[in-house]
Amino acid sequence: MSTSYLDIDPWKIIENTFDKNKIMSSESIFSIGNGYMGQRANFEEDYSGETFQGSYIGGIYYPDKTKVGWWKNGYPEYFAKVLNAPNWIGIHIQIDGEILDLNRGKVKRFQRELNMKNGIYTRKFQITLNNGIEISAEIIRFISLKENSLGAIQYKITALNRDCEILFEPYIDAGIVNQDSNWDDAFWKNKSLKNIDSFAAIISKTNKTKFEVCTYMSSKLIFQNNIINSPLSKNKFKNKLSQIFKINIHKGKTVKLIKLGGYINGKRNYKKNLFIEAEKLIEKFKHIDFNELLKVQTESWKRIWEMSDIKIKGDLKSQQAIRFNIFHLNQTYSGKDPELNIGPKGFTGEKYGGSTYWDTEAYCLPFYMFTKDQSIPKNLLKYRFLQLDKAIENAEKLGFGKGAALYPMVTMNGEECHNEWEITFEEIHRNGAIAYAIYNYERFTKDFTYVKEMGIEVLIAISRFWSQRFTFSNDKKKYVILGVTGPNEYENNVNNNWYTNYIARWCLVYTKNQIKKLEKLYPIDFLKISKKINWNKVELNLWEDIIQKTYLPYDDDKKIFLQQDGFLDKELIPAKRLDKSVRPINQNWSWDRILRSVYIKQADVLQGFYFFSDDFTLEELEKHYKYYEPFTVHESSLSPSVHSVLACRIGLIDDAYKFYLQTSRLDLDDYNLEVEEGLHITSMAGSWMSIVEGFGGMQIVNDKLSFENKLPIEWTSLSFKINFEGSILEVNVGKNKTNFIWKGKSKINIISNGKKISLP
Amino acid sequence: MSTSYLDIDPWKIIENTFDKNKIMSSESIFSIGNGYMGQRANFEEDYSGETFQGSYIGGIYYPDKTKVGWWKNGYPEYFAKVLNAPNWIGIHIQIDGEILDLNRGKVKRFQRELNMKNGIYTRKFQITLNNGIEISAEIIRFISLKENSLGAIQYKITALNRDCEILFEPYIDAGIVNQDSNWDDAFWKNKSLKNIDSFAAIISKTNKTKFEVCTYMSSKLIFQNNIINSPLSKNKFKNKLSQIFKINIHKGKTVKLIKLGGYINGKRNYKKNLFIEAEKLIEKFKHIDFNELLKVQTESWKRIWEMSDIKIKGDLKSQQAIRFNIFHLNQTYSGKDPELNIGPKGFTGEKYGGSTYWDTEAYCLPFYMFTKDQSIPKNLLKYRFLQLDKAIENAEKLGFGKGAALYPMVTMNGEECHNEWEITFEEIHRNGAIAYAIYNYERFTKDFTYVKEMGIEVLIAISRFWSQRFTFSNDKKKYVILGVTGPNEYENNVNNNWYTNYIARWCLVYTKNQIKKLEKLYPIDFLKISKKINWNKVELNLWEDIIQKTYLPYDDDKKIFLQQDGFLDKELIPAKRLDKSVRPINQNWSWDRILRSVYIKQADVLQGFYFFSDDFTLEELEKHYKYYEPFTVHESSLSPSVHSVLACRIGLIDDAYKFYLQTSRLDLDDYNLEVEEGLHITSMAGSWMSIVEGFGGMQIVNDKLSFENKLPIEWTSLSFKINFEGSILEVNVGKNKTNFIWKGKSKINIISNGKKISLP
Repeated sequence: MSTSYLDIDPWKIIENTFDKNKIMSSESIFSIGNGYMGQRANFEEDYSGETFQGSYIGGIYYPDKTKVGWWKNGYPEYFAKVLNAPNWIGIHIQIDGEILDLNRGKVKRFQRELNMKNGIYTRKFQITLNNGIEISAEIIRFISLKENSLGAIQYKITALNRDCEILFEPYIDAGIVNQDSNWDDAFWKNKSLKNIDSFAAIISKTNKTKFEVCTYMSSKLIFQNNIINSPLSKNKFKNKLSQIFKINIHKGKTVKLIKLGGYINGKRNYKKNLFIEAEKLIEKFKHIDFNELLKVQTESWKRIWEMSDIKIKGDLKSQQAIRFNIFHLNQTYSGKDPELNIGPKGFTGEKYGGSTYWDTEAYCLPFYMFTKDQSIPKNLLKYRFLQLDKAIENAEKLGFGKGAALYPMVTMNGEECHNEWEITFEEIHRNGAIAYAIYNYERFTKDFTYVKEMGIEVLIAISRFWSQRFTFSNDKKKYVILGVTGPNEYENNVNNNWYTNYIARWCLVYTKNQIKKLEKLYPIDFLKISKKINWNKVELNLWEDIIQKTYLPYDDDKKIFLQQDGFLDKELIPAKRLDKSVRPINQNWSWDRILRSVYIKQADVLQGFYFFSDDFTLEELEKHYKYYEPFTVHESSLSPSVHSVLACRIGLIDDAYKFYLQTSRLDLDDYNLEVEEGLHITSMAGSWMSIVEGFGGMQIVNDKLSFENKLPIEWTSLSFKINFEGSILEVNVGKNKTNFIWKGKSKINIISNGKKISLP
Repeated sequence: MSTSYLDIDPWKIIENTFDKNKIMSSESIFSIGNGYMGQRANFEEDYSGETFQGSYIGGIYYPDKTKVGWWKNGYPEYFAKVLNAPNWIGIHIQIDGEILDLNRGKVKRFQRELNMKNGIYTRKFQITLNNGIEISAEIIRFISLKENSLGAIQYKITALNRDCEILFEPYIDAGIVNQDSNWDDAFWKNKSLKNIDSFAAIISKTNKTKFEVCTYMSSKLIFQNNIINSPLSKNKFKNKLSQIFKINIHKGKTVKLIKLGGYINGKRNYKKNLFIEAEKLIEKFKHIDFNELLKVQTESWKRIWEMSDIKIKGDLKSQQAIRFNIFHLNQTYSGKDPELNIGPKGFTGEKYGGSTYWDTEAYCLPFYMFTKDQSIPKNLLKYRFLQLDKAIENAEKLGFGKGAALYPMVTMNGEECHNEWEITFEEIHRNGAIAYAIYNYERFTKDFTYVKEMGIEVLIAISRFWSQRFTFSNDKKKYVILGVTGPNEYENNVNNNWYTNYIARWCLVYTKNQIKKLEKLYPIDFLKISKKINWNKVELNLWEDIIQKTYLPYDDDKKIFLQQDGFLDKELIPAKRLDKSVRPINQNWSWDRILRSVYIKQADVLQGFYFFSDDFTLEELEKHYKYYEPFTVHESSLSPSVHSVLACRIGLIDDAYKFYLQTSRLDLDDYNLEVEEGLHITSMAGSWMSIVEGFGGMQIVNDKLSFENKLPIEWTSLSFKINFEGSILEVNVGKNKTNFIWKGKSKINIISNGKKISLP
């Protein structure tokens, strides 16, 4: 674990020193966004040092031609890349002709601060330029939560030691390339540029996908009480427009430039003139005082926090961490557009390309379910319904038919993007997580409309896939699933991964029951859907047979479910006995050694115990946790959170707390020394889970499941206290109005400092 | 199967029509080479139609940076590409200013002929050019078997309908790029060019590997009895040199240009001035009459055929095919240089890059063992000894140590080049084939010098690898091998592939015995080697334990060895029940479907029965053949030959003959519609095997193994007759002097036209 260079604060992320080696890390950590667009915390002014410039727009992607060593039938044609979008924040600044660049002058003070309470990012510094002029600056920036397409910057400069001429040249730059690109294709083409009065805009179009985006800006200079709305002059470059403001100020005086900017996204402004839309937006906001804009932003975030804050007393690091996670989850996904989803890096980087993984259903849904109006988690489910046709096509490419659907491992528009056969073709348990999310949503909200209107089609298509994917083994007289990769990606192409077999069978049962329910409650709707998807009751016969005869690998001696066939042939040496020099094994061992080893990347059998806790006793959970966790190396950012939840359920609070810290401060403490590439957005939802579903679960009320039928809007709080390492953790989730209670099948023990504490 | 457009002839390959769609196929089929260099049958004159220009030099490669979608630890940095070398055959020709180009004029007659008896390639055509001039041409070309660096062309033109001016502009062109390249790197850099009098040469250097090659040429024009040695003028382009000869001839007259050319390979002319070496060569040969050169070439090939011809009476297609295979094997590998090996495409294409696969030991060695002086197969074994250090490094990269060696899947200089984890890291049975080749060589030649001088180190290093690669399963109380790919590449990452486990154990046994033998016969040598490789007898304890407790998957009911754990869970439907539309499955099914299916790409369990025939009864062989062959789709060019051999051993002559034709005419009949990419050189050795080890084995003499201790130079013949489909197949191998006899453990039945024929 790297010691964080950031201050600990309950509401803020604060950096107090100027360290050129941390620029890219901070660019990730201080990222801002509003679910529609987002950006890394790049400097507005020029910076000649090492930096990773990144701005991103939700849903705007490029189908980058697949790169593989050896092509295999069924591979997708492309990998959808989140596109690095034109830069709207840039302001070129010269002081008496000297370029303002923190890499070149002498930086005296430097501070940046991301206020998570109101989503406002502030940076202050004092610098002596190479021409001897000393200035201080304060920059405030935000991306509006209320107005999807709007961002704003206030750039203040104070002359400290001399009178000087200050030149601001705000610009928009559409000559952008991706860091992550397979073949160095040009991703964008610029269609037209407009630079009139105080308004400048560029319409760019993505190659192949033909998405249109208008990047715009409008600036004004404010000095004392004068507002200069029009630039002195304008520049037009090939892919870039700029406007020049110049002013002479006396020593001690302050000038500020206000810049509004952002994107009009053609996808959401279909057939509209994007220039006009941008101009309208500017007209609406350009006369509003910047402080007014800040107030609106603060107000918007206030409403978010009312719904989703978690208070932790007695542990500031934990408090800061959980808010950091909640904050970024809200910046990444607002839930208003069912065509958007939650990318693994959100708007903070490019790694992993496409936007949607099974992370959404398995890890993120609960957060949005608990903290948002139900329309929002419903939109996450609707996303998959909208892509059902593509999932059916995807299954067809692999040889399935009759309406069977295989949802993609990675996708942007429903088409599969991933291209490792062992994942693309074999990590099919993702299909199960999508069905599980439907169940989870219905269980929590008691809202049956999704199933009725959309979900039943998704469920049937998924179950059709499973029924075709099972093979009847004459040898075992059971249905088996051959050649899969489970959630533990350190095993590939195994037979009978217990988790996959289990969730596949569960899908068949759940779908069967939902069909019955729908048929009974809404016979006419069901009839219509039946016709549409060519449903025939006869299909249930095979499903039933599979349900009765699903093979689930089990060891009679050890009384545990086996991760897959042959698991016990491995060398069963606990991970803690590995030499530190080989950890993480994915950086130190060859792939084949990892595959042959017993070590588990992330919860696999235990993922099943997490999802299907009703099906097992706590004793069974404890047995499996204690068997599998010692082999688990937690080399996926998704691993610690599930283990934290399970550890809570069996009272291993030391484990639970360790895992919680690991997941919640993953980026702040940069555990994997890679935060500069972007944040781990989807695993942030896991931190939330480990508080609410883990620690929260320790507030046993009685031995019953009690996800009650409360809409998230009604549901409001969770609070509990835990004695831990001498300090009291007092956790409060939500608005402190009603109770949140976690199911428990039997008594839970909390162990603190090695001592068992019985809870009621 | 595509019907061949080529004539059937016992000694020649003949094409009689000019079909632009077949140009690239013929370029492959009519390829010529001498083991040191080779080339596709490209036209000397310009050709503006579709063509695949290819010239190659043994051992000259480029380490092309690896291309993968997702990097895995242990992957090699590069893939060694056989380099497309500078062109020395080119002759730009103009008739009265009109470029001679078969794609533009009107071709009247066209014929090409590859005479396999003497390695001479002839092309004749008659064409009316667009300027109305009609000419005929006859071109003879060969690459000298005697003189490694020499090639020669005689280009004759006859003016048919008019007097005309004929311009010959022979050139060498070093501005060559590979068809197969990962990143479009420049592979060659040209160092210096020389163009004096009748001699022109370019020294090129490969990037990264720094191999130097001098491409040279020298031409003369002969008209009636005049020889014009010096060109009229010379041209120098950036990467190309040419010389111009011009002559006016009367209607009906013939002029010919003789061009000598080729490469001086810097690897074999270390520290020499390559220009001077080329000039010396030209001096030596330029005054020799072209017909004299042809005689020498004919003489060289005569000696090859004396050693290796197989005569088949009664079946011209088979006769042509087996000679085609023998011819190309000789063109690809001469065996004089232990740093060279047998590339899967020889000098006929670029696909599969690197030169050496396990094909060499498993499929090619017997051919060279039977038909060459033993120094030649010994050089094949020496190649691996020379690369032992790299094989040890390769194993170290994967986490093995203490002198364990894993030979690469694909290599040029001993480093691994392949980059699919399921092959690179897991298709480790290749290590076994290398040990088996040592055994096979010693068994056949009774020459122990290889083992004594080199082989024992190879064997111990391989056995060390196996001893580390086995895992002791506490569950099974046996040693298992997890995570491998067997010869059947349609299964990946399986546990306990029977063939791999079997050959691994066999390696341990064989190495142990060879150590004992060496220790006894040459104790001083052994002591020296022991020190060198840090050998400790104690290692044998683990080996012995593994030998005693090797797990070999077996089904008690069916009494068959199982291809791998879990094989019987598959859907066991014979391949013949697959719809034709899905064959070959590797072109029609997704990879995951192939993996899950029972279908076998090439002999796997049966490869073990082929190698270790002594260990099994014919009844066992028959049982396993009849169990596994029906699931085999033979989608590797290496598959039919082994099955042909095994079918012979159990008397299934219909099968054997079908497989023989499939393997021997694979390229001539272009079964897979890909001959234009190059020939399947290594599988050609399989055709030879199927005759000698398969059909040859039917001459049972008694029930004993009888590979006698005869050096190949002494061993000379094999002859047998088979009644087949009404005609008599009379097969003669070698010089008809002594007997070749195949072992047989019990009576063999030959079935002809469904009737069983008992042989003595």
